Amino acid sequence: MPIITLTTDFGQESVYVGVMKGVIYALHPAALPVDLTHQVTPQNVLEGAFLLHTAYRQFPPDTVHLAVVDPGVGTTRRALALDVPEIGRFVGPDNGLFSYIIGTHPNLTAREITNPAFMRHPVSATFHGRDVFAPTAALLARGVPFEQVGPLLDRDTLVRMHDLWPTWTKYAPDCLRTKGHVVHIDHFGNLITNIPQHLFDRFGSSGFKELYIKIIGSYDLKTASLVTTYGQALPGQVIVLFGSSGFLEIACVNGRADTSPGGPIVKAGQLVSLEVFTFFPTN
Amino acid sequence: MPIITLTTDFGQESVYVGVMKGVIYALHPAALPVDLTHQVTPQNVLEGAFLLHTAYRQFPPDTVHLAVVDPGVGTTRRALALDVPEIGRFVGPDNGLFSYIIGTHPNLTAREITNPAFMRHPVSATFHGRDVFAPTAALLARGVPFEQVGPLLDRDTLVRMHDLWPTWTKYAPDCLRTKGHVVHIDHFGNLITNIPQHLFDRFGSSGFKELYIKIIGSYDLKTASLVTTYGQALPGQVIVLFGSSGFLEIACVNGRADTSPGGPIVKAGQLVSLEVFTFFPTN
Amino acid sequence: MPIITLTTDFGQESVYVGVMKGVIYALHPAALPVDLTHQVTPQNVLEGAFLLHTAYRQFPPDTVHLAVVDPGVGTTRRALALDVPEIGRFVGPDNGLFSYIIGTHPNLTAREITNPAFMRHPVSATFHGRDVFAPTAALLARGVPFEQVGPLLDRDTLVRMHDLWPTWTKYAPDCLRTKGHVVHIDHFGNLITNIPQHLFDRFGSSGFKELYIKIIGSYDLKTASLVTTYGQALPGQVIVLFGSSGFLEIACVNGRADTSPGGPIVKAGQLVSLEVFTFFPTN
Repeated sequence: MPIITLTTDFGQESVYVGVMKGVIYALHPAALPVDLTHQVTPQNVLEGAFLLHTAYRQFPPDTVHLAVVDPGVGTTRRALALDVPEIGRFVGPDNGLFSYIIGTHPNLTAREITNPAFMRHPVSATFHGRDVFAPTAALLARGVPFEQVGPLLDRDTLVRMHDLWPTWTKYAPDCLRTKGHVVHIDHFGNLITNIPQHLFDRFGSSGFKELYIKIIGSYDLKTASLVTTYGQALPGQVIVLFGSSGFLEIACVNGRADTSPGGPIVKAGQLVSLEVFTFFPTN
Repeated sequence: MPIITLTTDFGQESVYVGVMKGVIYALHPAALPVDLTHQVTPQNVLEGAFLLHTAYRQFPPDTVHLAVVDPGVGTTRRALALDVPEIGRFVGPDNGLFSYIIGTHPNLTAREITNPAFMRHPVSATFHGRDVFAPTAALLARGVPFEQVGPLLDRDTLVRMHDLWPTWTKYAPDCLRTKGHVVHIDHFGNLITNIPQHLFDRFGSSGFKELYIKIIGSYDLKTASLVTTYGQALPGQVIVLFGSSGFLEIACVNGRADTSPGGPIVKAGQLVSLEVFTFFPTN
Repeated sequence: MPIITLTTDFGQESVYVGVMKGVIYALHPAALPVDLTHQVTPQNVLEGAFLLHTAYRQFPPDTVHLAVVDPGVGTTRRALALDVPEIGRFVGPDNGLFSYIIGTHPNLTAREITNPAFMRHPVSATFHGRDVFAPTAALLARGVPFEQVGPLLDRDTLVRMHDLWPTWTKYAPDCLRTKGHVVHIDHFGNLITNIPQHLFDRFGSSGFKELYIKIIGSYDLKTASLVTTYGQALPGQVIVLFGSSGFLEIACVNGRADTSPGGPIVKAGQLVSLEVFTFFPTN
């Protein structure tokens, strides 16, 4: 299947995304471009990495995932193509955007895109999405061998971001302290963190009974309720739940968790540290 | 034709829509997903119902219309599939989102989606768009028989919203009073109401000569001009016209009807009652 | 290849774009609609013309480009179809939206869309995108002969906008003064002007060493740095570069050029004149 997913911070005001699709179709008329999102907060590589991480597993393994959040375009940062057996291929800048992929798939093969046949010429200094990554994705989806992209890269040299995962300590027999990030704010104003559900699993199936949240530089939630669905809480109540991708989310029923009556208190895309205190049963 | 339309309140900041398309393609590689909109005001079921109502007739009768505006996800609300002969199939929550469809097509067949083969497992508590509705839409579009979805539902038990249509009274021989809702505000700031043009047709082909509009809790338009096209009025003038879907719209030529120089006065998605007084010829 | 690109000011809040795609698929099931953008500033014909101008060359020559920024819909403005050999076909209102196309392709053939077979009936007064332009684009993409659209139009009678290109004077031996427009503000807050790079080429390959920018009614940049990539300047610095489509852009590294700490100073879509003073080497 010739699916090419697209994840960028280009927005939809301009024709940047449409132009990339024109380049793709010109090289691979049977391509199936699928937009993941083009509204990654501008130049927020961690948000782009996280969003791609929550999406790529839903696609067939012959999919090519094209991702461009690229503040260093035109500098010496490398152009990257990854091949992950049974999972898919990934094309974009070597700036940490594929950190989650690299971290979870030790069996990947990485190549630097250097073959001029994989580029649109002249290559501009500011739009490698059009001139390098779209042509590469199109040709790979069309079946051109991955080996032709360019030279092999040592996986250990690939750029990886800090802050991909939360830190945590078992603070007391019944308490877990963890510190992560709000990596994404969705259309509903839900604050999506990078704190995974399985972090709590290891502390027993009984789960946790109380939860204290503090968004540093923003607001204290004190004891928020952990629920399974939005319908379990009252309108206006701030709740915590594990979202559909297995990460902790802070939500406000029938409202937005990123605003208060006085205005926005967590800005969209802003990275905010938070701490979750979990009190486990003492028995 | 394997068209699957998508109508949601998911926005485009996140990868929710892209993930649904991944699920669709994985089950039905030849599917043709078509976005209607993903910017229904969050949790505004009436707006979603109205927008779907103004769009589905443009699509071939073998289209599957997938709609998800679903504040009750994870609760006991039912998952619904509708089959309307010669019109199309509809998949989404049984929460009123298909009220217009149900009301205008007495010959429909309704089934509850209960067959696990139509779901992605494990089914999350918060994202039935991915886990229930997208797989069901994909399988129906692929040709899996509608009967396999789940048990028949009595049409009379399906959830239907109030306020789908305006109320009206013939207030005097030459006056019609009607009270509806602003159900949608479009990109131009036009206020789209659920007051249909045919409500006025029955009062004679001569139409009406004067019109008084009051948006309750907001602003009085007093006598607004009824026009056929935007070009018939002057820049800045507030006008009333019957839009391309046959509903009354309030617009401001070269401006926005939802704002005034002092700021927004009708908020996007806000439901505002209005009254239209129509003075018919006394002849 | 049956690609139909779409460029409109319809936004994505409503179902207008989805409805046009329904009309397209109903007439041409194998069509490949590609969104360029639907976020042209409402009724900003120049912005729509410019964005189309920067995109259409990336598509194969059998592409049909459908563009609708149409404040005069329903008035006497003509409906237009253009055929440009080796380039593509264009469908939309005759209101200047194709000014760049008309200006750069003297060999085009123009026809007025008058054949009722190219329209959806009844034709509404406010949505020719659905009722005239989408059916015409679909039929042309399907292979219906261009001649059937309607009568030939004299190219000299087609509406063309002023302000497509900047004015300029060689002010002194080493100085060029030019005055153009900010025609588009992209998702990053970059101000895209209609001042082309080749304007400076004719003054020698050594380029220019200093640049003074004044956005009339807004702010003075005085001497801004000309760079090749964003990575060449410091965060917060206002820079000037020639963008990927060959036009001068004003950007702010890791920030937005359309805002300042005190708030927005250049509004999105607002047309602002600017002057560029270029000091060439006196050698």
